Amino acid sequence: VVKRDVTRVVTPGTLTDESLLNDEQVNPCASVVFHGDDTASIAWAELSTGAFQLVTVAAAEVGDELARINPSELLYCETADGAAPPRIAELPLDCPRTGRPGWQFRMGEAVDALRKQYRVATLGGFGLQDDDPALAAAGGLLAYLLETQRNDDGVLAHLRPPKTFARTQHLIVDQASLASLEVEQTLRATDTDGSLLAVLRRGGSSGGCVTAMGKRRLRDWLCYPLADRAAIEDRQRVVQALVDDSRFADELAGALDGVHDVPRIIARLAVGRALPRDLVALGKSAGQAEALENVLAERPSVAPYHQRLAELLSVLVDLADRIQSACKDEGIPAHLRDGGLFRDGHDKQLDEYRTLQRDSNVWLANYQKDLIEETGVSSLKVGYNKVFGYYIELSAINSQKIKDDDQRFALWTRKQTLKNAERFITPQLKEFEGKVLSAEGRAIAREQHLFAELCGVCEKQIDTLHAFADTAADLDVLLCFGRRAARHRYVKPTLTDEPGLNVVGGRHPVLDELLGDRYVPNDVSLGVMSDELTVMSEESKDSSLVTRHSSLPQSGPSLALITGPNMAGKSTYIRMTALIALLAHTGSFVPAKSATVGLCDRIFTRVGAHDELHAGRSTFMVEMTETANICHHATDRSLVILDEIGRGTSTLDGLSLAWAIAEHLADVGCRCLFATHYHELTTLADPAVGGERAARIANLNVSVREWNDEIVFLHRIVAGATDRSYGIHVAKIAGLPDGVVDRAHQLLGELAVNHEGMAPKAAP
Amino acid sequence: VVKRDVTRVVTPGTLTDESLLNDEQVNPCASVVFHGDDTASIAWAELSTGAFQLVTVAAAEVGDELARINPSELLYCETADGAAPPRIAELPLDCPRTGRPGWQFRMGEAVDALRKQYRVATLGGFGLQDDDPALAAAGGLLAYLLETQRNDDGVLAHLRPPKTFARTQHLIVDQASLASLEVEQTLRATDTDGSLLAVLRRGGSSGGCVTAMGKRRLRDWLCYPLADRAAIEDRQRVVQALVDDSRFADELAGALDGVHDVPRIIARLAVGRALPRDLVALGKSAGQAEALENVLAERPSVAPYHQRLAELLSVLVDLADRIQSACKDEGIPAHLRDGGLFRDGHDKQLDEYRTLQRDSNVWLANYQKDLIEETGVSSLKVGYNKVFGYYIELSAINSQKIKDDDQRFALWTRKQTLKNAERFITPQLKEFEGKVLSAEGRAIAREQHLFAELCGVCEKQIDTLHAFADTAADLDVLLCFGRRAARHRYVKPTLTDEPGLNVVGGRHPVLDELLGDRYVPNDVSLGVMSDELTVMSEESKDSSLVTRHSSLPQSGPSLALITGPNMAGKSTYIRMTALIALLAHTGSFVPAKSATVGLCDRIFTRVGAHDELHAGRSTFMVEMTETANICHHATDRSLVILDEIGRGTSTLDGLSLAWAIAEHLADVGCRCLFATHYHELTTLADPAVGGERAARIANLNVSVREWNDEIVFLHRIVAGATDRSYGIHVAKIAGLPDGVVDRAHQLLGELAVNHEGMAPKAAP
Repeated sequence: VVKRDVTRVVTPGTLTDESLLNDEQVNPCASVVFHGDDTASIAWAELSTGAFQLVTVAAAEVGDELARINPSELLYCETADGAAPPRIAELPLDCPRTGRPGWQFRMGEAVDALRKQYRVATLGGFGLQDDDPALAAAGGLLAYLLETQRNDDGVLAHLRPPKTFARTQHLIVDQASLASLEVEQTLRATDTDGSLLAVLRRGGSSGGCVTAMGKRRLRDWLCYPLADRAAIEDRQRVVQALVDDSRFADELAGALDGVHDVPRIIARLAVGRALPRDLVALGKSAGQAEALENVLAERPSVAPYHQRLAELLSVLVDLADRIQSACKDEGIPAHLRDGGLFRDGHDKQLDEYRTLQRDSNVWLANYQKDLIEETGVSSLKVGYNKVFGYYIELSAINSQKIKDDDQRFALWTRKQTLKNAERFITPQLKEFEGKVLSAEGRAIAREQHLFAELCGVCEKQIDTLHAFADTAADLDVLLCFGRRAARHRYVKPTLTDEPGLNVVGGRHPVLDELLGDRYVPNDVSLGVMSDELTVMSEESKDSSLVTRHSSLPQSGPSLALITGPNMAGKSTYIRMTALIALLAHTGSFVPAKSATVGLCDRIFTRVGAHDELHAGRSTFMVEMTETANICHHATDRSLVILDEIGRGTSTLDGLSLAWAIAEHLADVGCRCLFATHYHELTTLADPAVGGERAARIANLNVSVREWNDEIVFLHRIVAGATDRSYGIHVAKIAGLPDGVVDRAHQLLGELAVNHEGMAPKAAP
Repeated sequence: VVKRDVTRVVTPGTLTDESLLNDEQVNPCASVVFHGDDTASIAWAELSTGAFQLVTVAAAEVGDELARINPSELLYCETADGAAPPRIAELPLDCPRTGRPGWQFRMGEAVDALRKQYRVATLGGFGLQDDDPALAAAGGLLAYLLETQRNDDGVLAHLRPPKTFARTQHLIVDQASLASLEVEQTLRATDTDGSLLAVLRRGGSSGGCVTAMGKRRLRDWLCYPLADRAAIEDRQRVVQALVDDSRFADELAGALDGVHDVPRIIARLAVGRALPRDLVALGKSAGQAEALENVLAERPSVAPYHQRLAELLSVLVDLADRIQSACKDEGIPAHLRDGGLFRDGHDKQLDEYRTLQRDSNVWLANYQKDLIEETGVSSLKVGYNKVFGYYIELSAINSQKIKDDDQRFALWTRKQTLKNAERFITPQLKEFEGKVLSAEGRAIAREQHLFAELCGVCEKQIDTLHAFADTAADLDVLLCFGRRAARHRYVKPTLTDEPGLNVVGGRHPVLDELLGDRYVPNDVSLGVMSDELTVMSEESKDSSLVTRHSSLPQSGPSLALITGPNMAGKSTYIRMTALIALLAHTGSFVPAKSATVGLCDRIFTRVGAHDELHAGRSTFMVEMTETANICHHATDRSLVILDEIGRGTSTLDGLSLAWAIAEHLADVGCRCLFATHYHELTTLADPAVGGERAARIANLNVSVREWNDEIVFLHRIVAGATDRSYGIHVAKIAGLPDGVVDRAHQLLGELAVNHEGMAPKAAP
């Protein structure tokens, strides 16, 4: 009887097994604690990599923050009635929510648990005050992880000390914006194909991320772009070096290629579920440290990375040596119980047991030969089966001889009777069996012992291994950026502190790759103009957007109203702008001829018609909720992208709202692209209507050519309010009766005349 | 060596095998011939049922007509270069298009081929002139079917004579309208679940269609509603009888229950691919004719059906008798080669062969007994295997005896040597084997002969069987209508020749079932008022729509403008109206308290935002193309449903177009529901703006209540222009900053004031 015990509890947030995890995706378990009505703390840890982070945010932002973390499981402090409190239940997450006992979230218990886990007397060493409110969430989370993992010493060796997530170091992109920019997933299908992340990660023929760690890190960098200019420029420097020196890029790719998913291997080691191949992969990965160090050496752009790596090198080389000298390179057993992980010659005792096993085959062949001679039965066989062990087999007829010759075969014992044969055992064979079976068992036990020993050695170096994995992941993402920039003609964006955004020949990173030469690049100019905008192509000089650059003063309009027919490229243009700004904040180069990006504090987008019903709210309600969020939080350092605000209601209501929102955002001074069907709004740029505000507002439109009674969209954005919309023209082409088209023209004329006086006065 | 030959070519349009066909779906093969630029003919046949139809339509309507036919394969006259001509390639169909030689579509060849197929000297008997242009299409189709089926006599026995499809007898519902009303498929997914067809077909716990033929017929009736009042009322009469007499309905369901898919069985019979179970099913089905006749007898409402059936009865009863007396009821073999379809006693010769087979077991047992006695070997066995036939088996030891006793066993021949046994054959056994095996073979050959004979008998009655299947299919759909009407409180619509549409307490047939009591019924009143609108419920009396009935003159507005916020039920209301009108034309009762429906010539709908790009055309272009089609073809007998026309362009363009279209449709005088966000349009109902036309236009709106700062949609349509739209209110609830909301209010006030004078003058 095998002793059975619950050794761990498997929950969505606590998976560590390779087969259950996608190596491109993170799998965090999060816990949330509300502090009154104002703030809340979130702690999240990834058991599969050991990452552990904390953040305290405004209560209203919990949903957004959790959506970015994208936990597989959410823990909360359960209430008396067992139901999730409304503010937990209302969080817009797909993951299961698990209620946990309240005491685990109490500060005192939490601090004790953390001290015990990390075997420290104070959490100060981790940069945490003992009264940091986020510790409550961390305590609840830790208690859960320990409970599900059930290891004896009450400690999760690979769980790294909690790090306070520095929100101020990151540009904030709310979940609605990440979704509508299709950063992680496309809007249409909730899969990752066609998203910015997928396009970067895959990278096409050359490029993309090399390691699984890099793929996950890329997701982090895209979802949490940097806010700090120096930090971004540090990354840009490496990307530039990789662009300038393709040999560097190739060598780096080569060095990273042998690095396996180190954090996940460590996690499996720590929870005692590592497999032989994990150990071998860890050895190989650590062995790449030297190659990596060689690539980084003497290259100033990556000096910090080189230094970090150099500090780890001796430990890693030692570890790689120990593992690689102990374990085989090939033919690694799937499970330790199959035996055969360790090399011959590595361990004397193991070698002895193995010799015994190998020699046994010779002994058996000799023994069989002897018995055939002795009995005169040439069909005599010595065999083995799992249930009965070793045996001598004789056909029924021959076995009679044995039974008849009592004296000679007195020591033969019948073991098993088959239809046409009988099986016997002899004392000699019995003795041999004992020796062989125990040799095999002992060999496996010995391998297990050696394996545990070696794992123990690795576990002692968890910090070093984590640091190595971190460095490799960063380098992998930078390599991905570098190779993409080189291959797809990306340019280094100039980062400024002035709130401007100036792009020449910008392309949408995903559509650019999809459409190739058919993609029409466009310029963007918002807010403060840049001196550096001198690189202009032939093509760009045609564009009225750019000619304006030279004639205009240093500070241009911050809000651009974009009018023009459907399908002409308005949505692509505004999304492109947001994605270029987003990429610029990750340290990546951007798909453009030249780009100057004033640092943003937030990027907001309200794009695309969600025609589906979210929790029973109408499309218009969703649109207004998202817009309200933008109006409340946009600052003069934000970038705001709005598409067709006010469509879901009556004309006048919609126009009034769009107008008031445009005025509000112009006053805020955020950089804003505002695509609209309400041509009435274009008068805002007229000082007679818009007053002082008019200077802050520009009109853009999509150029359209009529050609043989067809409308051709040039997908080019040009300055100026559109002189006409093509609605009636399209209707005519679509075949509406002439009478109806003529009447619509007439009505349009009358409406337009009446409309002259219709523009509201400038707001106070 | 088996002689192999191509016996048929399988193509998407010529399937007959049960396993490849869905019994709820039709599977026609169509062919199209254009006659110059103006007209075109379509022929379509279903090889799996034998249906064969022709129609000649305007060239522009070919796409619509084909979409309704929904062919699995489309044949066309191929051009010199082998490519499909543009007007074939551009047809909006999913099915494969097959080019065919031009000569097959030539009139002379076509007429000859048809004469040969039906063995007639003239096609006049089928109501076809020899110069009917549609014959060209029919000829091309027939040539293809014959070529793919390759039967020897150059005739497809089960293909019925071509019937000219009488377009004038049907209400025309174009493909876009069928799609947006979700008659066959839902808009979201291209599957049938949730469509009107699926809901009716399934019918829930009781109801729905009983037979496969009925399920296919129901689809025809929904896609081709009737235009002729008398024909509709004939159907209504049967439905009413089924509603009034639930025993009748139950009996009819019982009688239909045993009727299998007769047309498809006939088709398999005719092409020589019928299986034993097909024949048995045909017998059972024909046997139900008597039961069906009994149910129909003495019921005046179904007298025409009874008469039709009575004429067929003797043939069907005879056929059923012949099949049922010949074939077993149970244990029917899957294939004829397994034998055992026919009853014992049915055929003397078959009985003989079977006796021989059966008796052989006795003979064998006796023979074995004799041999055991003779040889003294009790383990002797007489057996059979497929490869070696019959044998006598002896163990190796015993077999030696036989070999030793040359004399006694001289006639024993060794046949096979096994490991521990040997097998022999004797002349007696050999002789027996010949007899038995040939008896088995002969029995199967005899069964095949009998089967072919019986199939031949059935084939002679193909016309009768088709007529029976037709009648059963009609009755099945009527039964489905009747049971639905009874179960879901449907009411018989009064059909009038005046162009009016008056519904009290109407419900959407699909949502009504989905939402149950939560569904809010609504009234409709368009065009001429009905005298019969006297049945009004308590509830309906509240409704302002209905109170207007009594006070208004006999002819009311024909066009209703519906304003009101999103999500309040506008779309459901207008779709409900179209579906009730559609159902009324099929002969079905309708989900309402009372309904008077003036006969329509067409139903048009332009509903829902197709946000996807069809062949590169923008949403707005699609919208305008569909609207142009409506403007061109709507008459004063049409019903037109328009939802949010003009949204995809600028405000003024959209408003001008919507206004001009509304005027046009009001002038046409078609019954029209026009849902719009352009509140400006509501002034059209004001004589000061709309002039004389104002009398033809009504305003409706969706009632909304504000409740604790929330908006509650009552889903109730009431008379009058809406006094306000809730756009700014919703924006406020959504959390837009107070400043912005206040400014929007202020702007709205200014716009509204300016707007007073903005309404265009009445059109000339």
